Amino acid sequence: MTSKRRKFNGSEGEHLNFIPLGGLGEIGKNMYVLEYNDEILVIDSGLKFPDSELPGIDYIVPDITYLENNRDKILAIIITHGHEDHTGGLPYALPRLDVPIYGTQLTLGLIKNKLQDDLPGYKPKTFEIKAGDVVQIGSFVVRFIAVAHSIPDGVALSIDTPLGRILHTGDFKLDSTPIDGRVTDFAALAEEGDKGIMLLCSDSTNAERKGFTPSEKIISGTLETLFRTYRNKRVIISSFASNVHRIQQAADVAARFNRKIAFLGRSMIRITELARELGYLKIDPKMIISIEESWKYSDNQLVVITTGSQGEPFSGLVTMSRGENKSIILGEHDVVFLLASVIPGNEKLINNTINRLFAQGCEVVYEKERQIHVSGHASSEELKIIMNITRPQYFVPIHGEYKHLVRHSQLAQEVGIPARNIFLMVNGDILTFTRNSFPRKQGHVQAGAEIVDGNAAGSIKSEVMKERREIAEDGVLVVSAAIDDKGNLLAPVAIETQGVFISDDTKQIFNELYATAERVITESAGKRVNLEALKRTIKTRVRDVLRKRNSSFAVILPVISLKRSGYYDDAAFFEKDFF
Amino acid sequence: MTSKRRKFNGSEGEHLNFIPLGGLGEIGKNMYVLEYNDEILVIDSGLKFPDSELPGIDYIVPDITYLENNRDKILAIIITHGHEDHTGGLPYALPRLDVPIYGTQLTLGLIKNKLQDDLPGYKPKTFEIKAGDVVQIGSFVVRFIAVAHSIPDGVALSIDTPLGRILHTGDFKLDSTPIDGRVTDFAALAEEGDKGIMLLCSDSTNAERKGFTPSEKIISGTLETLFRTYRNKRVIISSFASNVHRIQQAADVAARFNRKIAFLGRSMIRITELARELGYLKIDPKMIISIEESWKYSDNQLVVITTGSQGEPFSGLVTMSRGENKSIILGEHDVVFLLASVIPGNEKLINNTINRLFAQGCEVVYEKERQIHVSGHASSEELKIIMNITRPQYFVPIHGEYKHLVRHSQLAQEVGIPARNIFLMVNGDILTFTRNSFPRKQGHVQAGAEIVDGNAAGSIKSEVMKERREIAEDGVLVVSAAIDDKGNLLAPVAIETQGVFISDDTKQIFNELYATAERVITESAGKRVNLEALKRTIKTRVRDVLRKRNSSFAVILPVISLKRSGYYDDAAFFEKDFF
Repeated sequence: MTSKRRKFNGSEGEHLNFIPLGGLGEIGKNMYVLEYNDEILVIDSGLKFPDSELPGIDYIVPDITYLENNRDKILAIIITHGHEDHTGGLPYALPRLDVPIYGTQLTLGLIKNKLQDDLPGYKPKTFEIKAGDVVQIGSFVVRFIAVAHSIPDGVALSIDTPLGRILHTGDFKLDSTPIDGRVTDFAALAEEGDKGIMLLCSDSTNAERKGFTPSEKIISGTLETLFRTYRNKRVIISSFASNVHRIQQAADVAARFNRKIAFLGRSMIRITELARELGYLKIDPKMIISIEESWKYSDNQLVVITTGSQGEPFSGLVTMSRGENKSIILGEHDVVFLLASVIPGNEKLINNTINRLFAQGCEVVYEKERQIHVSGHASSEELKIIMNITRPQYFVPIHGEYKHLVRHSQLAQEVGIPARNIFLMVNGDILTFTRNSFPRKQGHVQAGAEIVDGNAAGSIKSEVMKERREIAEDGVLVVSAAIDDKGNLLAPVAIETQGVFISDDTKQIFNELYATAERVITESAGKRVNLEALKRTIKTRVRDVLRKRNSSFAVILPVISLKRSGYYDDAAFFEKDFF
Repeated sequence: MTSKRRKFNGSEGEHLNFIPLGGLGEIGKNMYVLEYNDEILVIDSGLKFPDSELPGIDYIVPDITYLENNRDKILAIIITHGHEDHTGGLPYALPRLDVPIYGTQLTLGLIKNKLQDDLPGYKPKTFEIKAGDVVQIGSFVVRFIAVAHSIPDGVALSIDTPLGRILHTGDFKLDSTPIDGRVTDFAALAEEGDKGIMLLCSDSTNAERKGFTPSEKIISGTLETLFRTYRNKRVIISSFASNVHRIQQAADVAARFNRKIAFLGRSMIRITELARELGYLKIDPKMIISIEESWKYSDNQLVVITTGSQGEPFSGLVTMSRGENKSIILGEHDVVFLLASVIPGNEKLINNTINRLFAQGCEVVYEKERQIHVSGHASSEELKIIMNITRPQYFVPIHGEYKHLVRHSQLAQEVGIPARNIFLMVNGDILTFTRNSFPRKQGHVQAGAEIVDGNAAGSIKSEVMKERREIAEDGVLVVSAAIDDKGNLLAPVAIETQGVFISDDTKQIFNELYATAERVITESAGKRVNLEALKRTIKTRVRDVLRKRNSSFAVILPVISLKRSGYYDDAAFFEKDFF
C-alpha cells in the first residue's frame, strides 16, 4: 500500500467522492454523500438514539459541517425509506441546508408528518418518486429500485455518474412473500449489474447472521395461533408504528377473529391514519373504534394496537404497564404480544416493561419464546446474492457497527471480490474515484455527532456531556464565598451538595470543609486576588479533605462573589470577570 | 383469599418463616432467611452489579437490617456456591453479623480469597462441608446435595425443620456429562422427595427457556473445531475466572494442539491457582507460562486465557482491545474466543469490546455465531423434572426477575402443583408455616438494596441517587449570594454551571439570571430572613428564566452565605443554620 504514491488529488480534476457522514461504525444516523466535482447528492439524513452515557439527551444526528460549508453544491437529499434512522436528522439538517428532498409517497408522507411537529412553518421542497423512476439530478442519473423492508415503499438507488455507477441498497431484505407483494426488484438489480456497477454500498446490519432472514409473512401464522390460544382474553399488541406490514397482519387476524381494533399512542394513530389514507394499510373502517369506547367491548371482541415495543417511557404500552393509562387497565384477562425485537441499547427498558406487565397480572408473549418478530434486514446469504447479482468492481459495507462491516467484507471476499477492492470506512472518510487510477481513501472531512437536547435545537459540546458524567458519578459539592477585592471574606463560607454521600460524622466533616475553604481564602487575603487561582486552590484543598475524610470523589465547584470597592450593583460588569 | 381470616400469628407460637432478602424480582444479590421460632439460618449473601441508573456505584447488596435486628438468633450463613451473586455480600454482611459460614471447599476457598482483599484482618469462622454431609445446625438438619453448575462444588440444601422439610436448589442444571463427572445427585433428591418435601425453593433463571440446557461438554467440541480452523493464529480466550470447567476444557484442547497457556488478569490468575491447588483444575504445570514470557512462543504455540468476557473496563481482554496491554499486542495474527454469554446489562460493554477487537485487526468468535457458551442454569424441562422428583407440597420460585418467577410458577402448575400452593414472593415478604394451618404470606420485613460506593463502606440513601440522576440529566446551575442578617446583598450574585448547555446568547442569559436572583434578594431585604424560603424563591424564579430563555431543565442550587452582625468567623456555629 505504501510503495508507490502517484500524484493524486481528489478535490481537483474530475473526481467522484463517496463520504459517509453517519451510519458507519454504528447502527443509526445514516447519511452518505456523493460528490462529483462540484455537485453533491446526499443520501438519507437519520438520527440515532442515545445511550446511558449521554444522560438527558434526546437524540443524535450527524455533524453536517461539511455540508454546511458546501451548501451551494448540494443538489438534493434522497431518502431511501421512512425510518427515523434515515429521516430523523431532517429537522436538524433542513433549516441549515434548505435543499429539496426526493422520496417515495409514504416516505414523504412520514417526513411531512414529522416536520409539522418539529419544524412548524417550514415547507420542504419535495419531489415524489416511485420505484422504477429514473430521475436526472445534475450530473447524477438516479434509478429508484423497489426493495422489501420492515416499512413499505423503500428503495435502493442505482446512481449513474460520469465516472461509474454506484448501487446503494438502502435497508433491504429479499423477502419472497412480502405482505404487500412488492418484492425486492431482482430484475432491475440484475439489469444494473449487466450495465456494470463500479461501487456497491450495501446494508450490513445482519451480516453476522447466517442464512436467510425469514419472510414477514410468518408472523401471520404465529398471530393466528396466539389469537386461538388466548381466544378469551383481551389482546394488546405492541409494535413499531411504522411497521405497516405487521399492523396489517395483526388487523387481518383480528378481522378473522371478529375483534375490533383500537389504536393507542399518538404516533400509532398518526402513522396508521397516514398509511390508510395513502392505501398502504387496508383495514375496514367499521373494524376501527376509538380507545375511549373500548370499554363497550368484551375482552374477546377487542384488540388494542399500541406503541412501546422498545419500552419507550411515555408510550402506550409502558403507561399501561405502570397502571397509568386511563382507558386500558390491565389484569388477568389480558394478554400482551410484543411484536418486535430488542434494539440494542433498549434491553433494560423492555425488560422492565415485561416485568411490570407480569406484575399487573397479564400474560405476556415476547420474542425470547416465540417467533413473533422477523428482521427487516438481509442476512448473510441474501447479502451474498446481492453481490452476485450486481457484481460490483468495488465494495463498501455501510450501515453497521465495525463488527458488521468486517463480517460483510468477509462475505464479499467469499463471493470473489478481491480484498483490495473492499474499503472499510469510518464516518468522514473520503473514498475518491478518478478516471484513470485505482480508487483510494484519502483524507477526512469533519464528521461526528451533534447532540440534540430537549428544545435546545442546537448541539451540545462534548465538554458539557463530560461535566454531566462527572457529576453523575459522585455528585457535586459547591463551596460558596463572598470576598472583597482585597480578598477578605465578607460572610462565612457556605457549602451545598447534590448527590454526595456524606458518611455518619457529617457535622465533623462539614466543619473541616468550612475551615479548609476559609483558611485558603484567609491565606490569600491582602494579596492581589486572582479569582481563578483562588478557585483552583479551594478546589484542590477541599477535594483532598473530602477524599480523605469521606472517601468521596465528588466534583468540587467553588463559586465566589467578588465585591469591588463601592461598586457591586451592576451584574453585567462583574459577569465579564467571572467568565 | 379474603373470606375467612383465622387468628394467625407468625411470630408467636411454633412457626417457620421463609423470608427472601434478595434474589426475588432480580437476578443477583441472593439472600434467603429461614426462621424457626427464634433460630435463623441464612442461605447465601450475594451482590448485584448496578446499571446505568446508579452512576458511580460499585455494587449492591441486600439490606440486612432485619438480620442486624435479629443478630442473636442467627446460627449461620450457608453458601451454596462460589459465584459473586451468592457470596459477594459477605464483606458487607460479616462485619455486621459476625456469624459462621458453611460451604464446600472451593466455595470457602473463593470466599477467603475475597475477604483477604475486602476485609483484611477479618477471620471468618468457617465450616467446610462436602456434598453428602448431613449437619445439624440448631433445630435445622441440613443435607448438602451435589448439583452441577457453571462453577464446581455447588450444593442444593435439604433442610429438615420441626415443621417440615425445605428443599433449596441453589443454582443448578441437570448436566448428565459434567466436566468433573459430578452430576446433580438425583438419588439424594429422590430420597428427600420420598421422605416428603414441604417447600421447594427453586432457581428460576432459565424458566423462560424451553427444553434442556445443553451439557457443558459440548464446548470441547466447539473448541476443537475452532483450534483447528485457526491453527496458525495466536488464540486468546476470554471466560469467567470462576468457570473452572470451561477453563479445564480450554486447557485440555490447548494440550492436544501443543500450545502453552498464559493466564492473564488478576482474578484469572488467582482463581486458577486456587482451583489447581485444591484439585478442581488439572493442568500439567509444564504447560503454563507467565504472560511476560509469552513473546518467546510463536502464535501457534500459545493460548492466552483471560478475563473480560463481560467487557469489564479493567479486565485483560478490554485492555488488549484498547491496545493498552503491554504483554499482548493484538493484530491480524490473533483470534479471540469469547466463551461466555452476555449478562443482561452488559450488552453495550461487550459490544464495544468486540468492535474494538475487530478494529485491532483480529478475528473474533462470539456467541451470536457459534455455540461457545452454555448456561449454568436449568431450563424449563429440567425445572419440571426437579419438581417431579421432589414432589413438594408448596412451591416458591426464587432467583429470578418477576417474569421468570411467573413462568416458573406456570411450569409448577403444569406438573400439578395447585396454584394456591405456589407463592410469588418479593424481597422482604414473610411466608409463614405453622403446624396446623395453611401457610400464608403475611407481613413484610425491611428489605431492599444497600449501595456500596467506592471506599465508602456504608450505604447510600436513595435520595442521593435521585439527586445524582437529576444533575446527570441536565446539569446543575449554582446561584451563590452573600447577605447580612437584614437580607442585604454583600457582593454581586455569582453563578457557576456544571454540565449545563447554554445557547449562543450566553451573556444575555447570564445577565438575566444575575438580575433575577438579585431582584429576589433585594425584594426580601429588610424583612426577617428565612434562608430556606429565600433559597426556594431563588430556585423557582431562576429556573423559570432558564427554562424560558435557554430551554434548560438544569437543577438550580442556591447557596447563601449569611453574615451575622459582628460574628462570622466560627463556621461551626453557622453550620447549624445551614443544615
